[in-house]
Amino acid sequence: MEPLISQIPIHRNSAQHKWVSCCSFCTFHRWIPILTWLPKYNFRWLQMDIIAGVTVGLTTVPQALAYAEVAGLPVQYGLYSAFMGGFMYCVLGTSKDVTLGPTAIMSLLCAFYIGGDPVYAVLLSFLCGLIQVSLALLRLGFLLDFISYPVIKGFTSAAAVTIGFGQIKSILGLKNIPHQFFLQVYYTFQKIPEARLGDVVLGVSCMLLLIVLMWMKSTLPPLSEEHTTHVRVAQKIVWSAATVRNALVVVGATVMVFSLESADQHYFTLTGKTSKGLPPFRPPAFSEITPNGTIVSFSDIVLDLGGGLAIIPLMGLLESIAISKAFGSQNNYRIDPNQEFFAIGITNIIGSFVSAYPVTGSFGRTAVNSQTGVCTPAGGVITGVIVLLSLAYLMPVFYYIPKASLAAVIICAVTPFVDYHQVIELWRVRKLDLLPFMVTFLVSLWEIQYGIVAGILVSGAMLLYHEARPKIKVTDHGFLLMELDSGLSFPATEHLSHVIYNNALQVSPPRSVVLNCQHVSRIDFTVVNELRNLLKQFRLQNVTLIFSGLKNSLLEVLNAADLPQLQHTESVEAAFESLLGHTHND
Amino acid sequence: MEPLISQIPIHRNSAQHKWVSCCSFCTFHRWIPILTWLPKYNFRWLQMDIIAGVTVGLTTVPQALAYAEVAGLPVQYGLYSAFMGGFMYCVLGTSKDVTLGPTAIMSLLCAFYIGGDPVYAVLLSFLCGLIQVSLALLRLGFLLDFISYPVIKGFTSAAAVTIGFGQIKSILGLKNIPHQFFLQVYYTFQKIPEARLGDVVLGVSCMLLLIVLMWMKSTLPPLSEEHTTHVRVAQKIVWSAATVRNALVVVGATVMVFSLESADQHYFTLTGKTSKGLPPFRPPAFSEITPNGTIVSFSDIVLDLGGGLAIIPLMGLLESIAISKAFGSQNNYRIDPNQEFFAIGITNIIGSFVSAYPVTGSFGRTAVNSQTGVCTPAGGVITGVIVLLSLAYLMPVFYYIPKASLAAVIICAVTPFVDYHQVIELWRVRKLDLLPFMVTFLVSLWEIQYGIVAGILVSGAMLLYHEARPKIKVTDHGFLLMELDSGLSFPATEHLSHVIYNNALQVSPPRSVVLNCQHVSRIDFTVVNELRNLLKQFRLQNVTLIFSGLKNSLLEVLNAADLPQLQHTESVEAAFESLLGHTHND
Repeated sequence: MEPLISQIPIHRNSAQHKWVSCCSFCTFHRWIPILTWLPKYNFRWLQMDIIAGVTVGLTTVPQALAYAEVAGLPVQYGLYSAFMGGFMYCVLGTSKDVTLGPTAIMSLLCAFYIGGDPVYAVLLSFLCGLIQVSLALLRLGFLLDFISYPVIKGFTSAAAVTIGFGQIKSILGLKNIPHQFFLQVYYTFQKIPEARLGDVVLGVSCMLLLIVLMWMKSTLPPLSEEHTTHVRVAQKIVWSAATVRNALVVVGATVMVFSLESADQHYFTLTGKTSKGLPPFRPPAFSEITPNGTIVSFSDIVLDLGGGLAIIPLMGLLESIAISKAFGSQNNYRIDPNQEFFAIGITNIIGSFVSAYPVTGSFGRTAVNSQTGVCTPAGGVITGVIVLLSLAYLMPVFYYIPKASLAAVIICAVTPFVDYHQVIELWRVRKLDLLPFMVTFLVSLWEIQYGIVAGILVSGAMLLYHEARPKIKVTDHGFLLMELDSGLSFPATEHLSHVIYNNALQVSPPRSVVLNCQHVSRIDFTVVNELRNLLKQFRLQNVTLIFSGLKNSLLEVLNAADLPQLQHTESVEAAFESLLGHTHND
Repeated sequence: MEPLISQIPIHRNSAQHKWVSCCSFCTFHRWIPILTWLPKYNFRWLQMDIIAGVTVGLTTVPQALAYAEVAGLPVQYGLYSAFMGGFMYCVLGTSKDVTLGPTAIMSLLCAFYIGGDPVYAVLLSFLCGLIQVSLALLRLGFLLDFISYPVIKGFTSAAAVTIGFGQIKSILGLKNIPHQFFLQVYYTFQKIPEARLGDVVLGVSCMLLLIVLMWMKSTLPPLSEEHTTHVRVAQKIVWSAATVRNALVVVGATVMVFSLESADQHYFTLTGKTSKGLPPFRPPAFSEITPNGTIVSFSDIVLDLGGGLAIIPLMGLLESIAISKAFGSQNNYRIDPNQEFFAIGITNIIGSFVSAYPVTGSFGRTAVNSQTGVCTPAGGVITGVIVLLSLAYLMPVFYYIPKASLAAVIICAVTPFVDYHQVIELWRVRKLDLLPFMVTFLVSLWEIQYGIVAGILVSGAMLLYHEARPKIKVTDHGFLLMELDSGLSFPATEHLSHVIYNNALQVSPPRSVVLNCQHVSRIDFTVVNELRNLLKQFRLQNVTLIFSGLKNSLLEVLNAADLPQLQHTESVEAAFESLLGHTHND
């Protein structure tokens, strides 16, 4: 089954729509994209959306339970976080494929800031949503432009390694393993002798089953008319089983464990007691009373959350935008980043009323959604209903889910993110970009929340270094010709001045210079000021500095600055002629 | 008397000298510039250096006393800080004019971090020196390139306003005025009724005298052979009096006050008791015992100094480098910024052994030094000796210096830094640069130490904004021609992609595009990745994307990335022909 090309005219964030931005009806449509596609909704779309929604739901439930574990929260919080996204995104989203819910990376990030406290988690979701909606309203989406591809890849690879390795302890049935990655590696290996046989056998079996199902799906030959009905039915069964493999494995493991437990055979580490039923609908708590009676105020909680209030909203947006762009590109539609920000933000705000922790787009479930041929965001509603049904009726069963099976689900979900091909590709294309990648990767392994910051700083520094040290090609034509390869902004002033002094003014005799500015597109006051100094020095030493190829906008600035003896020619050749004439006249 | 052109071959930081950097003897000369000029020292230079040194000394003593007051320290600390610079800079400096010592801006900055505690001040000097020497050894001088001219001007203007206004209270003889600028303005005006008549009369008289002397000096006609000896002697007297005006005014005021005090007439606020004699030579204290007996450890002090350990070393370097460059440009020599860093750093480290607080180059005293015709940094030694003599023999007299006279000295010293011409110039040349100027100015008025940080952030953001949003000129030639005006680095990826999608791919029918990259000088992995996506979309929609004018280095990167169907032509015309051929063939 091939992914369907989206047929719905999702509203686009294009310049063509500028003329409608003052029209309140269209603006309204823009903020509520469902208004655009719902009137055209038809039975075939409904069919496809139901199939996709159920399939994604069967992946969502086991993943949500497992990611709550990663976030350090009771498992039901995973499900609390997994249904609101489907409802909200159906109304507000601009991509048919994206499914919002708990994800591995967000769970890992949250784990650090909430310290296992659901009150913190829910309030974080509320604040995170507020920040995301503000970013959408202030149209600050461009901030994400400063996170480069190597930084994103470094971060997701490190997060996948951290999350994946963090589950090894569940596969081995180990307890009391510290959180920090390197300590975790050390203690996991040190405590291998304490591994519980039941957990190991179950965990490894689940992983093998998941891998085999994945492999079978990837090697299915494409269906064609030549195949008999039997072959086609068999292929569909394999494809379906492979697609809902997470649910199959967890259900299978749970049934087996349940029968063993009923027979009083306790070989496995179980999920254990969870609270029953749907979460209450109420605003998040803005303060907390600790068991020993002291009140933690709102400002204390905000201080504790600290940098998380910057990193979690941004990472949430980044993850979701990256996913929606990837699937938009694959299925040939464009998303509206600001509207996506808005949808995620509202989901987090409303989510906090049903005890959710911060959510974002999930790569794995979005892929399942797309592959099962979802046609509109309405698929999310079906997924949400399945999660709600699980919460209402299945919670007593979740007691028996073996932790090792959830660990197997997580490990198989995050493995594709460890992308060693990227390292080879970076090495081949531009070795310099390995630096931000490696810095992000290594710092993320150390402390996941600082990795992305370190990566942004390194790539920002590389950017600024180029600004500060533009290449200046100096050639000798009797006079010196200096060619600037790019912009000329204030950090480059010192460097330019240094090159000109050393080559033209501090030699004996001093030399005239033609400064070819054809690639220079802007100039600032600091540069103008230094040019004034330089022109003065050239005059003092009785030589000439001629600018050539200046754009009109730059020439205006230089003229406004009233530089003494500013000489400019259209082309380098004209500058040469002018200099030769000057010499002949001497 | 005209400023002399420096005749000493001060060692230069030039590429020509690269070949000697491995030669230990030359490297040694480079680190100890005195070795270069001392062998050529002659009697005429000595004469000029003595005259300049004495003149600068007579300015240094009153200013040092006054600036200690600004730093919130006992007045003798100003003198402790004022002599080591002369000795060290004589050996290590690369500019003949610069005089190191306490300055108004550094004193104001220190005041905030040391809270009036000399132990903190001296330790700050030591740490500041260490940081400056490290910057010199690591050759990190380029960091200063990121402080743009408008930011520097905004900062110095605000500092001058703050310092100047801060002295009004001394002129008025007011007490208990808060430090914060806006509160200071409020309370100074509110308390005007409490002004002491004696202080006001003395302060205003001193200011008037200083202004008249400055004005006389600036209006002196140039000396020529036609003038009689009498005229020339008279002019020299006026010039000398005007040059040492600070000392004249303070000495005059002190003598008057002393005679009145001896007659038991107490009209003035006096400097009061100071400790006698030279400071001991000993390492700075690395911890402190408070009056109530608790020990403040080294790490506590470092934590208290906090951001001061970044801002004070950098501002010190910035101030001194700006001054030495300005006078180097005026007197036709080049300084070596890294060696300057080294000289200032060593001065601060050794200074801390004689109880100095952080020093840097002083604009006012450097100007006096240059104008009196100093020939080598040896002038600083004479200045240092004068300060030491004052410390040894004059301290009892300093008791009688009226504070209002020192305030007048400071106000006249900082007024030239309030540079409203710059605002007009910025408005005329590039209005956008008023933004970092105003932000720096206003934040500096609020809290001086954050102003420079705010300015750097604003100008950095402006720089990055240009990186993220390069201008793309789109013209229609049957096909679309898109011209990039400058670099193409990762923050611009989204924008480029957005423009191409909206103009070429989301219109019906889709259009082919020629992307003119002749002004693009570098490219990174994020951009390459997006180009891959774009090429895929163009192929899907059956239109063409042709690159033109790519530099070889860029073409290599794109080829390494193995982009599908990458098409490149040397010129835009060739791209047009290729597209036309393509259309005809269809």
